Amino acid sequence: MAEGRGPSRRALLGGAGVVVGAAALAGGGFAAGRATASPVQLRQYDFHGEHQSGIVTPAQDRMHFAAFDVTTGSRDELIALLRSWTQGAAVLMTGTELGDGAAGGSPLAPPDDTGDATGLPASGLTITFGFGPSLFSKDGEDRFGIADRQPSQLADLPHFAGDTLEDRLTGGDLCIQACADDPQVAMHAIRNLSRLAFGVASVRWAQLGFGRTSSTTRDQTTPRNLMGFKDGTRNLRAEDTDNVARWLWADAADGQEWMAGGTYLVARKLRILAEVWDRASLSEQEATVGRAKGSGAPLSGGNEFTDPDYGRPGADGTPLIPTDSHIALAHPEANGGAMMLRRGYNYTDGADDLGRLDAGLFFLAYVRDPETQYIPMQNAISSKDAMTVEYVRAVGSAMFAVPPGIAAGATLGGDDGAYVGQGLFG
Amino acid sequence: MAEGRGPSRRALLGGAGVVVGAAALAGGGFAAGRATASPVQLRQYDFHGEHQSGIVTPAQDRMHFAAFDVTTGSRDELIALLRSWTQGAAVLMTGTELGDGAAGGSPLAPPDDTGDATGLPASGLTITFGFGPSLFSKDGEDRFGIADRQPSQLADLPHFAGDTLEDRLTGGDLCIQACADDPQVAMHAIRNLSRLAFGVASVRWAQLGFGRTSSTTRDQTTPRNLMGFKDGTRNLRAEDTDNVARWLWADAADGQEWMAGGTYLVARKLRILAEVWDRASLSEQEATVGRAKGSGAPLSGGNEFTDPDYGRPGADGTPLIPTDSHIALAHPEANGGAMMLRRGYNYTDGADDLGRLDAGLFFLAYVRDPETQYIPMQNAISSKDAMTVEYVRAVGSAMFAVPPGIAAGATLGGDDGAYVGQGLFG
Repeated sequence: MAEGRGPSRRALLGGAGVVVGAAALAGGGFAAGRATASPVQLRQYDFHGEHQSGIVTPAQDRMHFAAFDVTTGSRDELIALLRSWTQGAAVLMTGTELGDGAAGGSPLAPPDDTGDATGLPASGLTITFGFGPSLFSKDGEDRFGIADRQPSQLADLPHFAGDTLEDRLTGGDLCIQACADDPQVAMHAIRNLSRLAFGVASVRWAQLGFGRTSSTTRDQTTPRNLMGFKDGTRNLRAEDTDNVARWLWADAADGQEWMAGGTYLVARKLRILAEVWDRASLSEQEATVGRAKGSGAPLSGGNEFTDPDYGRPGADGTPLIPTDSHIALAHPEANGGAMMLRRGYNYTDGADDLGRLDAGLFFLAYVRDPETQYIPMQNAISSKDAMTVEYVRAVGSAMFAVPPGIAAGATLGGDDGAYVGQGLFG
Repeated sequence: MAEGRGPSRRALLGGAGVVVGAAALAGGGFAAGRATASPVQLRQYDFHGEHQSGIVTPAQDRMHFAAFDVTTGSRDELIALLRSWTQGAAVLMTGTELGDGAAGGSPLAPPDDTGDATGLPASGLTITFGFGPSLFSKDGEDRFGIADRQPSQLADLPHFAGDTLEDRLTGGDLCIQACADDPQVAMHAIRNLSRLAFGVASVRWAQLGFGRTSSTTRDQTTPRNLMGFKDGTRNLRAEDTDNVARWLWADAADGQEWMAGGTYLVARKLRILAEVWDRASLSEQEATVGRAKGSGAPLSGGNEFTDPDYGRPGADGTPLIPTDSHIALAHPEANGGAMMLRRGYNYTDGADDLGRLDAGLFFLAYVRDPETQYIPMQNAISSKDAMTVEYVRAVGSAMFAVPPGIAAGATLGGDDGAYVGQGLFG
């Protein structure tokens, strides 16, 4: 059978090139599975860096996210998993298969890679790891001897007004966010990293996001959420270096040295009551959001990027931007200037048992301190914001500490290699 | 507020251009929501044609599919829905919003369009309509005076060995298949067509497919399914005009004149037992499929497109392609030469309650006669094929008659306009 196979993708690429040429792929008999390998799909990011990738990286179009329960009680097994995930992620981000690939190695052994992304370019894949509060202690137990290293910033979120959380969509000891411009590449990453966790951690819940709802760099156009509005116009972006330094990255002075260069991820599955929303009038929708639906301009006037003027009155003397609108309550000025880096995705799980659209926003936000940057804002909008109160139901929720990246040049493999979260165990 | 809005996308484009220019979009303040409007995303197909679009159209990368229950007993309301769907589909396929758009019309009325695809190009959207057996008669009742027009080819599928169908994923009076190269565009189409059905039909089940598993034209590379194998190498393709005429399109002599130029769609939701499959050895996986995993070549040798030699023995005298392999049992030669046009998609619904990957193949096949082209093949593989028996579970199933297209130049709007399935009611 061996002669029937083409050269392995790994052999062709050697895991070396930063930009994978479409011609090289096509010439090797493993042409891209899509007819459409665009420049974006050929984009490739470094695994190494001061911070993990997938945070200020330009938001990719698709996402697969998974939260895991750790099923072992062994600290060594947990560390071995983080080593294995680190090495695996670095390989996957190059558009390369794991180990000997899906059609390499011994024919008598299961392939190292599931093969469902073979032939697809790197597609801008980023893989981002996080640690939930329950990894540090659960039911009062210091599971892995790290309870004293739990950051004060990492705690289960409080109950917010209107939360209807499902346990099966909530929490998790570990998480992996895989973003890519091809959903098959993102899913392949989660699937294969989940395999590496066999016997040590198992998937608690997972979510596919089909369209980004945030821009994280200035050159990205503003996408629309499933309410039909532009989302994330005022998002913190990579180019806002002063604000990124202030609001995004933790440093040692924040309390836990191992988290310096890391950040905190708030993940919320927000179902949109689409049928109800879709029957609201245009003016009600716009008053609910505080922006014009077409242009995204604030109701106080201007264009999408004009600063909202929350005090500007209309003809009847009341503010043009209603005080219970989403932007009035969620904007940084209403929350002590606190900013977040949002990185959410539209999702759909099809139809529910009543035939209603089961869809919404998988909200992801990275912040330096959830206590000051997320919780006050969420308390305000959960209780007062017309959009959140009337049209959105939180069905899942989780929080994770996202450790820093691994310095350029650090070796990843072997017992001495660097691994994600190493500072926590050192 | 009006001055805050940009010009409507509809006004900009006028619904006229066959190819939508990216520059025109960007210049109008409604730049594409993705950073990545590739040539493929700018592709646009005609709604009119001898056959409906979305069948021999080059398979797009993403899909949203919905099956509907008709909730009215009124024939007139059903016809009105088909008129409305026809007009809506033709508009949506141009990348245009419905009616006055998401930010047009009266501010006191709900917008005609949900707006979540505003700014996105047509993305090769096709919309394909079908009629299930239960539309013609249900519990012995001739619901809409069309029972005598039910094609003999359209009947509920028999039970196949190993079927574990869930009622909530099975059947449907009507269906819509929306395929596009952007999942948000496909979902937007299903969402807005579902809105048009309010009070007449409601979604019974829906499925998002994130990656195509078939090529329908020769210029498309062969994609991979979630087993990591190339899928659809020997699929019927648009260029095979003789076989397309023989195996795909119904004609009046097939029994029902209104179906001339139409075809029949078999839809099956096939969950893959991924964790079990992933633990099988490479040689077992290849023997199960009958092809090499890397290249896709048949185990009898050659390359992906070499004809399999089912009789060719290996060193031990048994066929190199095992007789219980998938290709040995599913190939046309084993089924009287019968061919199908497959158009399936990889799907994932996340993780199940045990943390297992809830994913598989949403199998779609278009055939002229399911009785001879699908059912014998499925009976063979359900009972004997190592792949289907060991690693695949059918959890959903449906069949639909897909009526012909609407001739070029036909008017669609108004009470006199043409509509999909018109021949059934004429």
